[in-house]
Amino acid sequence: MLGDCITRVREQAPLIHCMTNYVTVNDVANVLLACGGSPIMADDAAEVAEITSLASGLCLNIGTLNSRTIQAMQTAGRTSSELGHVTLLDPVGAGATRLRTRTATDLVENLDLTVIRGNISEVKTIAQGAGTTQGVDADAADAVGEGDVAATAAFAKELSAKTGAIIAITGAIDFAADAERCFVIRNGRPEMGKITGTGCQLSAMTCAFVAANPERRLEATAAAVACMGLAGQIGWANMAPTDGNATYRNRIIDAIFNMDAATLEEGASYEVI
Amino acid sequence: MLGDCITRVREQAPLIHCMTNYVTVNDVANVLLACGGSPIMADDAAEVAEITSLASGLCLNIGTLNSRTIQAMQTAGRTSSELGHVTLLDPVGAGATRLRTRTATDLVENLDLTVIRGNISEVKTIAQGAGTTQGVDADAADAVGEGDVAATAAFAKELSAKTGAIIAITGAIDFAADAERCFVIRNGRPEMGKITGTGCQLSAMTCAFVAANPERRLEATAAAVACMGLAGQIGWANMAPTDGNATYRNRIIDAIFNMDAATLEEGASYEVI
Amino acid sequence: MLGDCITRVREQAPLIHCMTNYVTVNDVANVLLACGGSPIMADDAAEVAEITSLASGLCLNIGTLNSRTIQAMQTAGRTSSELGHVTLLDPVGAGATRLRTRTATDLVENLDLTVIRGNISEVKTIAQGAGTTQGVDADAADAVGEGDVAATAAFAKELSAKTGAIIAITGAIDFAADAERCFVIRNGRPEMGKITGTGCQLSAMTCAFVAANPERRLEATAAAVACMGLAGQIGWANMAPTDGNATYRNRIIDAIFNMDAATLEEGASYEVI
Repeated sequence: MLGDCITRVREQAPLIHCMTNYVTVNDVANVLLACGGSPIMADDAAEVAEITSLASGLCLNIGTLNSRTIQAMQTAGRTSSELGHVTLLDPVGAGATRLRTRTATDLVENLDLTVIRGNISEVKTIAQGAGTTQGVDADAADAVGEGDVAATAAFAKELSAKTGAIIAITGAIDFAADAERCFVIRNGRPEMGKITGTGCQLSAMTCAFVAANPERRLEATAAAVACMGLAGQIGWANMAPTDGNATYRNRIIDAIFNMDAATLEEGASYEVI
Repeated sequence: MLGDCITRVREQAPLIHCMTNYVTVNDVANVLLACGGSPIMADDAAEVAEITSLASGLCLNIGTLNSRTIQAMQTAGRTSSELGHVTLLDPVGAGATRLRTRTATDLVENLDLTVIRGNISEVKTIAQGAGTTQGVDADAADAVGEGDVAATAAFAKELSAKTGAIIAITGAIDFAADAERCFVIRNGRPEMGKITGTGCQLSAMTCAFVAANPERRLEATAAAVACMGLAGQIGWANMAPTDGNATYRNRIIDAIFNMDAATLEEGASYEVI
Repeated sequence: MLGDCITRVREQAPLIHCMTNYVTVNDVANVLLACGGSPIMADDAAEVAEITSLASGLCLNIGTLNSRTIQAMQTAGRTSSELGHVTLLDPVGAGATRLRTRTATDLVENLDLTVIRGNISEVKTIAQGAGTTQGVDADAADAVGEGDVAATAAFAKELSAKTGAIIAITGAIDFAADAERCFVIRNGRPEMGKITGTGCQLSAMTCAFVAANPERRLEATAAAVACMGLAGQIGWANMAPTDGNATYRNRIIDAIFNMDAATLEEGASYEVI
């Protein structure tokens, strides 16, 4: 079931408008191309509504937000919401500063978000209006272990019911939930944390998957999450002894480029609860 | 003839001032170093005139334009024009939004451009003051096939006569024209479209080639276009089965790093009409 | 002695707030992860003080400065200075434009800098309030050869005494000095100049090394410099014939990812004068 989702992305090549941080933006563009989507980046308030109108999805990532781009994100987000396009928020570092928490909270309140994707600390901040995020990585105290799966799934479902958005929480174990069902996904490698931007890449890729599979948005989100994790596993298997995180970054995107429906279908490791 | 052009770049190491989008800027810098040029990036209005004065060429790329950088591009462009430096415009996404169309049109009207390089949709927008660009890729309706070569070459020559700039149109078939002659170049691989930024890289590299070969600007433009396409072919030949677009990106820049005059001379596939 | 410094980085994983240029920012983030640190990028004046407070070090790199980020750098720098955090300045292109020279000079005067790291032209600009920097590479007339080692070491010590900061000058031969001692380091490869951003990467990595080794800041700076150069040597040894500067970029970061204390200890080539 999940495997078909990437086939649809490759067939439809959805154009995704990314308003994303300048740290990982190149990888975000290349991962969209790798999975079959098409990227466009634009962040000026004078043009974002037009760009969003051309696209099938909008990825809002606040990783290097500033006063100019916050305003433009709100403009683009309203346009995308009004058009019923896929609108995803990646609340990078929400909880770390008041600006990030307020910006993320405002976007959640004002937009009709399709997906919210973050680490557990960021998503808790969205839910609680407060957080203890240290930097942009999940706080150790928030880490989700096997004993926390049921509670985290319940939390994600509840937040989905409250916001109307699919909630994707990624970490050692990944979750993708609507109000009724939660995919608990166990793909990925711990070494992915040694590369900057796998989360940003996943957010953009999720936009493309959901845009190409509008009648099964939850499955598409889960498929994107599983695809990223599986690519991390495949990429790691292709590493030579002298390779490190720079090469691993490329290997993961390469694995997505070569991912087919059968590989994703067979490699996706998940349960639905 | 074209092969010599890269030798001159390596001998002279022209400094190229790039005002380019933040998506592909790192690859742009590395491709300039790969071909023998030297990059400098600066976009603040308070310093761009000084930076441009130090450089041999200016590459204006509107891929992630904003109100601040548009102003700075105009300032830098006027300085570069006045100094008679190589001034290149890459009108990324012209036709997609009014802001991009207006910005590109203003730069064409106000500057003494040496080269305009874009895909067919972008260059048509420049010519017509209107367009149907979808995102930043060429519109399918505009695609140039073998049957359109003569007409496209004539179009490029006419636009060159009108603007005074060399016109480079890149796609499945590439064109580089002044008012009299048009190089039709058949290098490249379709898989280059699966990497973000090969166009941006080519624009910056063209600046370096033209700056190092001032007495044969058209040939230098054609050499840069052929060099990029040939690097795409060589890079693809060096791909392993598990490699994908992330590795391909590196392989193309690597191929430019290793390109010598003889390889370019022999590998360049073109006719002049 | 130097080898232990990287062990401490890996044990403590210092969070480094980078306000750095958008050309090389992705490599900067990945090199911090490679050496064991943790990156966070933020440049809006409304949040930089909070981000800096969370971090152990602040890396200020003026490579693509603008009026907005200059203001934010001053705010972050003051916070970092007041908290006694590691505060490093990389005065990219100081001497090339009045804006860069003035910005760098202002930061040196107003902040309690822990380290200043640049090429010889940039550091001379800091010392003299004037310079002949061409672009962002060191001016040929400034190049430090074997005959200039004693004079350059004396210059670095004097500037350290004057500013209170450790002075790191990198080029064919590298220097790291406080007022009393100067490490003269002979690692590295000339081909590193064919990659954009090895200097930016080193600055961020130096922040992490110094933050994790507060009782031996000079040794930590020298260790970071040696680590970067040694990674350049190891990375070059891992190159295949068709590889070029794009792959070399990855190989260097990979080598840092795989660097252990023993390799650094044995590979570091230096004298203290």
